[in-house]
Amino acid sequence: MPDNSTEQSKCRIVVDAMGGDFAPQNAVVGAVEALKLNPDFELFLVGRKAEIISVLQKNNLSFDENFIVNAEQVIEMGESPTNAIKAKPDSSIVVGAKLVRENKVDAFVSAGNTGAMMSASTLIIGRIPGVGRPTIGAEVPNIHGTCYLYDVGAGKDAKPIHLVEYAIMGSIYAKEMGGVANPTVGVLSMGEEEGKGNEVANEAYNLLKKSRLNFIGNVEGRDILTGKVDVVVCDGFVGNIILKFGEAVPKLLKHLLEQTAKKNILDALKIVLVKSTLRKALKSLDYQEHGGVPLLGVNGISIIGHGSSTPKAITNMVLKAKLMYERQLVDKIEKSIKEYSN
Amino acid sequence: MPDNSTEQSKCRIVVDAMGGDFAPQNAVVGAVEALKLNPDFELFLVGRKAEIISVLQKNNLSFDENFIVNAEQVIEMGESPTNAIKAKPDSSIVVGAKLVRENKVDAFVSAGNTGAMMSASTLIIGRIPGVGRPTIGAEVPNIHGTCYLYDVGAGKDAKPIHLVEYAIMGSIYAKEMGGVANPTVGVLSMGEEEGKGNEVANEAYNLLKKSRLNFIGNVEGRDILTGKVDVVVCDGFVGNIILKFGEAVPKLLKHLLEQTAKKNILDALKIVLVKSTLRKALKSLDYQEHGGVPLLGVNGISIIGHGSSTPKAITNMVLKAKLMYERQLVDKIEKSIKEYSN
Repeated sequence: MPDNSTEQSKCRIVVDAMGGDFAPQNAVVGAVEALKLNPDFELFLVGRKAEIISVLQKNNLSFDENFIVNAEQVIEMGESPTNAIKAKPDSSIVVGAKLVRENKVDAFVSAGNTGAMMSASTLIIGRIPGVGRPTIGAEVPNIHGTCYLYDVGAGKDAKPIHLVEYAIMGSIYAKEMGGVANPTVGVLSMGEEEGKGNEVANEAYNLLKKSRLNFIGNVEGRDILTGKVDVVVCDGFVGNIILKFGEAVPKLLKHLLEQTAKKNILDALKIVLVKSTLRKALKSLDYQEHGGVPLLGVNGISIIGHGSSTPKAITNMVLKAKLMYERQLVDKIEKSIKEYSN
Repeated sequence: MPDNSTEQSKCRIVVDAMGGDFAPQNAVVGAVEALKLNPDFELFLVGRKAEIISVLQKNNLSFDENFIVNAEQVIEMGESPTNAIKAKPDSSIVVGAKLVRENKVDAFVSAGNTGAMMSASTLIIGRIPGVGRPTIGAEVPNIHGTCYLYDVGAGKDAKPIHLVEYAIMGSIYAKEMGGVANPTVGVLSMGEEEGKGNEVANEAYNLLKKSRLNFIGNVEGRDILTGKVDVVVCDGFVGNIILKFGEAVPKLLKHLLEQTAKKNILDALKIVLVKSTLRKALKSLDYQEHGGVPLLGVNGISIIGHGSSTPKAITNMVLKAKLMYERQLVDKIEKSIKEYSN
């Protein structure tokens, strides 16, 4: 790859060509599409060079081979993350993370093994000084726009201070990436009153009350969707369960509509008629639209996608990485974490 | 009230006439409607007798005044539960719970202050021997029917043994009330593999593996909706958040449809046309259809409704209480808890 570690200002993004259930096809096609849409960054592809070239040719895509970084190994979706990143030093995930650590690129995007991507990002790229635990957030569409929910799976059994870190990082993300001026922050709880959380949530409440964040207190499960609050923090165990529950909602709706259609021919006809409209309405619930989720708190940009990512999802992940770079997310998080500690 | 504490076999249900945002109107009308639909039980109304009679007259309902149990005090929706049940011994909730404890009725139904209803049920009616913590469940509609989710708010910071109790009680409920032959049980977790839970979930996993329940291991948030499992257990903190998140989903859908309608006149017309069909499809998501939720593990039948319960919701709660009585839920739970302990 070209040595551009000095004097660069253009964002440099490496995409894991081998990551995802439909790799290298979807990853390569989606990444190159992002470059077509927005040529103002440098795109690298990491993975088996021969396979990448084959996909490029098959899809009639022109791409400078100098920007392909060869990595012969592949971490499969089912592999144990920590073992895999040790056992496969020449895997696309390990090589990609190293490119960020060595400042050869600014961002790493992968739809591969989520756990391996988290481990590689945390262990190889490393954490931002002062961050105890990096976090994965979800951008949940709601009645007023978006709720930024942290943590949805980077860590379970979080300590209260971790929830504060999530709140700091989530507020920056909501402001810089979501354009929310002074994001409100709530602790996910069983009721609005103080003391309505579990032990961790209640202690996080006390810490957040003393912080400089725009803290509004406890919020409930419904408030993720009602738009009462911009940033919601919770233990990764809770957030992950909500996220996966929410992802299954469109499937349930589809099922309920099918059941209704079966019972009555008129309803069936109406449902056929309205299908495209419903699809439009539910578009914002489709995670493919959002691309992947960034792992905040690592010392570089790391975006993790769904294993089933489509080319479009990959494209969106790349463009998100670019925006995070332009908005200087990593530097801003480092500064805010430092301010909180002092 | 008539003394029927001996030689009874007919189910006796007392409804809190003062419970809920629209009491006594909705509670009285809904309760009497249940009796009309199914006269094969004894209905009592507890609350301010004069107000109850006024509602009966206003709605042209005939009801034997001997079955009205006077209670002059009312626990308001916002009151602190534990204080309220001490400070208001002549409240409908306290008097109703005492009727169960004294075996003057078999079941108590209220849409009043949820916390007060839980406290009164646990402290006055008392727990079934061997039950460490009673539980409130949710019946979540899903692709294969219903998922029985415990606990959704009776207690937070549950211990692993509490999750086992929830699994025992939930399995009985799913079998007796839902007609599920040999209900599968899962522990809510971040992944399917063993060890994917937090500390409490992982320990509950170990206990459930050794139990006689039809335990299938860890399940994820999506499995509540995919129908992979009949009974799902979790800490009340997690369950309550999911429940409230789920309750807000129809509102989000409404909003998304409205937004789509605003953008395009054809979509707007289609949405108007399909409205009644959508309402049919989403009917099962409406908690009013399900009536209230039983507090399992107390030594009697206690059903707690939403504050905003309609008369229909009250009717459904009463009929649910009757079915729980006929299926001998309390006895069966006592027996199973005893078997587990031995």
